[in-house]
Parts: sequence; C-alpha cells; structure tokens
Amino acid sequence: MAEGDQYVVHPIGVVRSSLRTAADAPNQAFEGAPEALLEIEPSFLDALHRVQAGDELIVLTWLHLADRDVLQTHPTGNTTIPLTGVFKTRSPDRPNPIGVHRVTVTAFEAPTTLRVGALEALDGTPIIDLKVAMRRP
Amino acid sequence: MAEGDQYVVHPIGVVRSSLRTAADAPNQAFEGAPEALLEIEPSFLDALHRVQAGDELIVLTWLHLADRDVLQTHPTGNTTIPLTGVFKTRSPDRPNPIGVHRVTVTAFEAPTTLRVGALEALDGTPIIDLKVAMRRP
Repeated sequence: MAEGDQYVVHPIGVVRSSLRTAADAPNQAFEGAPEALLEIEPSFLDALHRVQAGDELIVLTWLHLADRDVLQTHPTGNTTIPLTGVFKTRSPDRPNPIGVHRVTVTAFEAPTTLRVGALEALDGTPIIDLKVAMRRP
Repeated sequence: MAEGDQYVVHPIGVVRSSLRTAADAPNQAFEGAPEALLEIEPSFLDALHRVQAGDELIVLTWLHLADRDVLQTHPTGNTTIPLTGVFKTRSPDRPNPIGVHRVTVTAFEAPTTLRVGALEALDGTPIIDLKVAMRRP
C-alpha cells in the first residue's frame, strides 16, 4: 500500500428510521432497534434484482456523525470498561466510520425501497453497500 | 442524501496472503481460504489496544481489483444461476467494493501485525476497518 492511497465511496441510498439522535439508538440491533426503510437510489434498481422479502442482508452504512480521530473508547460508553482500541469495539467513532448491520428484508415499499427488521442506524445515515448475509456451512 | 455526496476512505493496512490472483481465491473463507497477516499501519497502534489472540473480528477490505460498474452477476460465477443483482450476492464487483470478512486472531507477529485464520482476500488487498464480531444474544 502506498502512503496516501485513498478511495472514494458514493452512497447508494439512505436509511429512514424513527431513530433521530444517537441518544435514541441502541448499541446493537437486538437491543430493541426499530424496523427501518432502506431507500436505494433508483439508478441501482438492477442491483436489487432478485432481492425479496425474507432475505437476510448485510447493510454497510457510512456513519456520517462519527469522529474519525478517535482511536480508543470505553465500549458502549461504559466507563467501568477499560479504554479499548476502536478496532476491538463497534463504536461508530473510528478512522473509516463504516457500520455493518445484519437485517431481514420484510417487504418492498417501492421498486427500490426495502422495509427491513431491526436496524440500529439513525435516520439519514447513508447506505454504501448491500450484500447477502454469509451462508455458514 | 444530496446528489453527489461522497466520502473518502484511507486504508489502515494491507492483507498479506498466499492468495495472489482471483483464480486462487475461494468464494468464501470456509471453502479453504488460507491464514493471512493483517499488517496495520503503525500509526493505528492505539486502535488495536486490547486486541488479542482468540478474538473474533470483522475485517473490512477495499476490493481494489473490482469492477464498480457491474450491477448484476451470476453468483459464484456459475452461469446456471440466473443473473442476480449484486446487492444479493457477495461478488467483489459492486458500486462500493467493500469486503466483509469474519476472522479469528491467532497471534501478534509484530505490534501492529495480526495473524488470522481463514481469510479469502488476495495479497495486497487494502484493509479499511476492523471491529469486534457481533455478539448475539
């Protein structure tokens, strides 16, 4: 890797959610996150071909409110847990603030708008990728 | 999301692997991928604090050889499977070519070099994030 390499990410869509502020958001989806909509740009219609209700997808988001200079944190904000490198946490604050979320597609609301189950991302969070969840042997 | 928004990713490290070409690489780690090294930039030493052998991490990579204009593909290159939107596949070819890999840390080879178990990324692939694997209830 050459010093100074960089790559440009273009959002493919946006999260629509009742979660409006970081204080609303659980740390992980199974801690009571609400369902959400994934509004994908119409230009990516073809990339959604064969996605259907029941699919398990990995959603990658750009955590646009993150502080990219943070290298250590108390996990889940609990100061009784020792400071930990962000690469061993799920903190949004990290050098490249990409969120990884596993969701279940429950319906299509429009040709490029998917309703999904529990998602711990804030309303307005850019979506940068979708992929089918890993099948395990 | 405003039209034309974009975000810049700076690699945090690079994969060192015996996988040299796409033809060598399995589609998924459990299909026989070799162990690999994660060479993290020394400037991110603090972000690795408390990472240790036995940890399960999610590695995000930038799939630098990908074709970002591909929207549909035959999954796993099997042309008997109908064309499928890339958002329902694990194909490296996609608008934002980010790989998601779950690995187990087996050792530290240097203060910022981690040895990990099965990883299906090619030698030289940029690493853009590490996070602890999701704990499930």
